[in-house]
Amino acid sequence: MESVMEKLVSLCKRRGFIFQSSEIYGGINSCYDYGPLGVELKRNVKELWWQRLVQKRSDVVGLDSSILMAPKVWEASGHVAGFTDPLVDCKKCKGRFREDELDGGDASKCPKCGGELTQPRQFNLMFKTFMGPVEDKANVVFLRPETAQGIYVNFLNVQATTRRKLPFGIAQIGKAFRNEITPGNFIFRTREFEQMEMQYFIRPGEGEKWIEYWKEERLQSYLDLGIRQEKLRFHEHSDKELAHYAAKAYDIQYEFPFGWQELEGVHDRTDFDLQRHSEASGKQLSYFDESTGERFLPHIIETSAGCDRSIMCLLADAYREEKERVVLALSPLVAPIKAAVFPLVKRDGMPEVAEKIFTDLKDSFSMFYDESGSVGRRYRRQDEIGTPYAITVDTQTLEDHTVTVRERDSMQQQRIADSQLAQFLQESLQKRSR
Amino acid sequence: MESVMEKLVSLCKRRGFIFQSSEIYGGINSCYDYGPLGVELKRNVKELWWQRLVQKRSDVVGLDSSILMAPKVWEASGHVAGFTDPLVDCKKCKGRFREDELDGGDASKCPKCGGELTQPRQFNLMFKTFMGPVEDKANVVFLRPETAQGIYVNFLNVQATTRRKLPFGIAQIGKAFRNEITPGNFIFRTREFEQMEMQYFIRPGEGEKWIEYWKEERLQSYLDLGIRQEKLRFHEHSDKELAHYAAKAYDIQYEFPFGWQELEGVHDRTDFDLQRHSEASGKQLSYFDESTGERFLPHIIETSAGCDRSIMCLLADAYREEKERVVLALSPLVAPIKAAVFPLVKRDGMPEVAEKIFTDLKDSFSMFYDESGSVGRRYRRQDEIGTPYAITVDTQTLEDHTVTVRERDSMQQQRIADSQLAQFLQESLQKRSR
Repeated sequence: MESVMEKLVSLCKRRGFIFQSSEIYGGINSCYDYGPLGVELKRNVKELWWQRLVQKRSDVVGLDSSILMAPKVWEASGHVAGFTDPLVDCKKCKGRFREDELDGGDASKCPKCGGELTQPRQFNLMFKTFMGPVEDKANVVFLRPETAQGIYVNFLNVQATTRRKLPFGIAQIGKAFRNEITPGNFIFRTREFEQMEMQYFIRPGEGEKWIEYWKEERLQSYLDLGIRQEKLRFHEHSDKELAHYAAKAYDIQYEFPFGWQELEGVHDRTDFDLQRHSEASGKQLSYFDESTGERFLPHIIETSAGCDRSIMCLLADAYREEKERVVLALSPLVAPIKAAVFPLVKRDGMPEVAEKIFTDLKDSFSMFYDESGSVGRRYRRQDEIGTPYAITVDTQTLEDHTVTVRERDSMQQQRIADSQLAQFLQESLQKRSR
Repeated sequence: MESVMEKLVSLCKRRGFIFQSSEIYGGINSCYDYGPLGVELKRNVKELWWQRLVQKRSDVVGLDSSILMAPKVWEASGHVAGFTDPLVDCKKCKGRFREDELDGGDASKCPKCGGELTQPRQFNLMFKTFMGPVEDKANVVFLRPETAQGIYVNFLNVQATTRRKLPFGIAQIGKAFRNEITPGNFIFRTREFEQMEMQYFIRPGEGEKWIEYWKEERLQSYLDLGIRQEKLRFHEHSDKELAHYAAKAYDIQYEFPFGWQELEGVHDRTDFDLQRHSEASGKQLSYFDESTGERFLPHIIETSAGCDRSIMCLLADAYREEKERVVLALSPLVAPIKAAVFPLVKRDGMPEVAEKIFTDLKDSFSMFYDESGSVGRRYRRQDEIGTPYAITVDTQTLEDHTVTVRERDSMQQQRIADSQLAQFLQESLQKRSR
C-alpha cells in the first residue's frame, strides 16, 4: 500500500506542483522543480512571509544578498573549519559513508561490500567552485550554506543607510546550498533549498524577552496559514544540542508523515556573529547608542525558516482522503488557484458567459477555467489541487445572472449574482484562515 | 568630475539600494547585495513581470526549476562544448586574458608584463562544482548559466499536467551564473545574476508572427515602466551575430551611460532545443495535435530579460540632477517607497497624528516615516530615492484634518483630507506611468 508520502509525491507530479529536476535525463538526486501550481504556492508562501516580517512591520527591513560571497566570510563564521560531517571510505569498493549513520555493531566493515573502512575524516558540506579563469586555491568560492551571513556582514551598511535604532531586524529570502550526504524525504531535506531568515538586532541582556516574542510570533504565523495546532510544537535545544554560537534555541517542529521534524529555528545567537566578523574583518560591527553615549555589539535573535519545508508541511497538513475524493485543504491564502469557473455544458452560450466571468476575475485573482468532463469530475480536479471555490454557470445564469459557488471543504453550494463575485471572493478569501 | 555611473553607484550605496558583496572583507569582484531599498525595487520589477507574463495572461504558466541540474542537460544544450571564451596565458607572469580583448597590434605579448603569451585555449564559462562526497569527474555538476534549459526539459511535464494547447508559454524567474572573465559596469554584467525568461511554444511556421508579437509586447513593458522611448531601440542580429540555435533574433537595447547595450533578447529558437533534448534523452519532447492527429516538435520564441540590468536601466533612466536636488524619477509602479509622512515639527501632537496616518497606510502601501531635520531636507531625501509622494502634517492638520501632499517631479502641493489619503494614493499610483 502506498504511504501518504508516496501519494503526495505522486499527486505533486501528476498535477504540476513539483517535478524531479532533469527528469527526462533520469533526474538528479534531491533536486526538485516547482511546476505551474507549485510555483504559485511557493510565491504565496514567500509573499506572506515578506508581508508579515517586513512590509507590515516598522522594525524590520529587507535585504537580498548574493549567493557567492568572499571566502573570508565562511572562515570567520566557522563554516570552513566546522561545517562538516565525519565520513569513512571503504578500502575495497571505494564507497563513502557518514560515520554517524553506520550501524554501530559493525562499524568497521563496509555496509555495501563488507570491505574494511578507513578512519573517519571530516567532509565539508559547502559546495566549492572557482571564480575567474584559474582553478587554484586562491580562487575558491563557496555557494552559501545559509543566507544569515549575508545579513551579518551587511549590518553596518544597513544600519547606516536606514538610520535604524535597536531593536530592528533584517530579513531575507534566498537560495542556500548544502552538499548533504543523505538528503531525503522529498523536498524536506535537499541540497539546494530556499531559506526565509530574519535576524533581529537587540541590546545585550534582552535575549530572553525577544526570543519569547519571536517564538510565539513565528508559531502564530503557521497557525495563520491554517496548519493544525496539534501538529505543531516547540522543541527546546538541550545543552548537548545547542550550537556553539547559541545561548538558547527553539525549533518549531511539525509532525510530518515521517515524524516530528524542524520547520524553523528561533535562536538567541548572542553577539557571536558580529564579534567574529568584527575580529576577522577589522571593522567594528558595533552600534552607537545616542541616548546613552555607549557603543556595543548588538545581540541577535534569529528566525530561520525553510521555504521548501514550509511547503512540504502545508501539503502534508492539507492532504485528506475522503470517500469519493482527495482534497488538499490548503488555506485560501496559499492556494495556487483561488477559484475555478465551469460552464455546465458546452452549448447555449454558457461557455461565453463563463469565459467572461473568468476573464473579469482573472486580473484580481488566480483563476482556472475548465469546460471538459462532467461537473463532478471538474470539482474533483480542483479539490485535489486545493482550489477553495468553484463557480458553475448553468441555464439559470443565462436567465438571471446568478451562478453556483461551491466551497471546497464543506461542498456546500450557494447562488450568487455574477456581479457580486469579485466582492464575495475578496471577503471569503480574507475571512477564512483555512 | 564624477561620471553619471559613479554618482549612481555612490547613491546606491549611500541610500541602501545596492552594496558591494562582502564589503567589510574588501568585497568580491562583481557580486552585489540589494539593500533595504534595492530589494523592494527588485521585488517590484519581478512582480510586475510575473503579473504581466503569467498572472494576467491565459496562455502562460509559471515554473521554478532548480539551479543544479543533471550535467547531461548542458551536454545536450551545447554548453559543455561551446559556452566558452578563448583565453591566453602569459608564460612569464602566469596572467590569463581573453584573446578577443587583447590589443590587436601586440597580441603575442602580455599586456601586464610584456611576457610571451601561449596559444589560446577555450575556457568554459560555467561554474563547476561536485555533488556528493567524492570530488571526481562522475560527480561534476554545473551552476546553470541560464534558466531557459529548466523550461525545455520540463516541457512534457508542464504540457501534460496543464493540458495546454499550442501556443502557450512557460515563464520563470531565477538566478543564473556565468564565470565571466571581464564582468563590469556595476550590476549590468555580473557573474551571479537573475533572469526573467519566457519560452513560448508555437506551431512550426508561425515564428515570424509570434516574434513580431513578442518584441512589441516586451518593448511596451519597458515603456509602461516609464523608460524614455528615445532611449530604447531594437537591434536585429545580423547573420554573423545570430546564434547557431536561432532563426531570427532581436535585442531590446537601452542607451546606458556606457552606451547602447542589450536589456532583453527576443529570439526565434526554432525547434533546436526540443530537438536536442529529444535526441539526448531519448524522450520525444513533441506535441500531439488532437484536431489534426499530427505529432510534431513545437518551435520556441524566447523572451529573455535580465532582472539586474532592468534595475540598472530603471536607475539610469530615472536619475536627474536639478538645481537644488537629485531626483530618481522612478515610476510609482517600481518605486521602493510610495509615500513618506512628515510631522512639520516635533511638538503639539503632530508626531502622533503623523504616526497614525503612517500606520493606517502602511498595511496597503510601502511607506516611510521621517521626523528629523527640516521639511526641505526631508523632501530631498525622498526625492533622491524616488518616493513619488510626501505627506506633511502641520498645524492646520490638527484643526481640519487636512494634510499637504507634495508630488516628487512637479513639486506641486495640494491639501487633502487625511481620510481621503488611501484612495488618493491608490488612484494616483495606478494612473501615473512615471
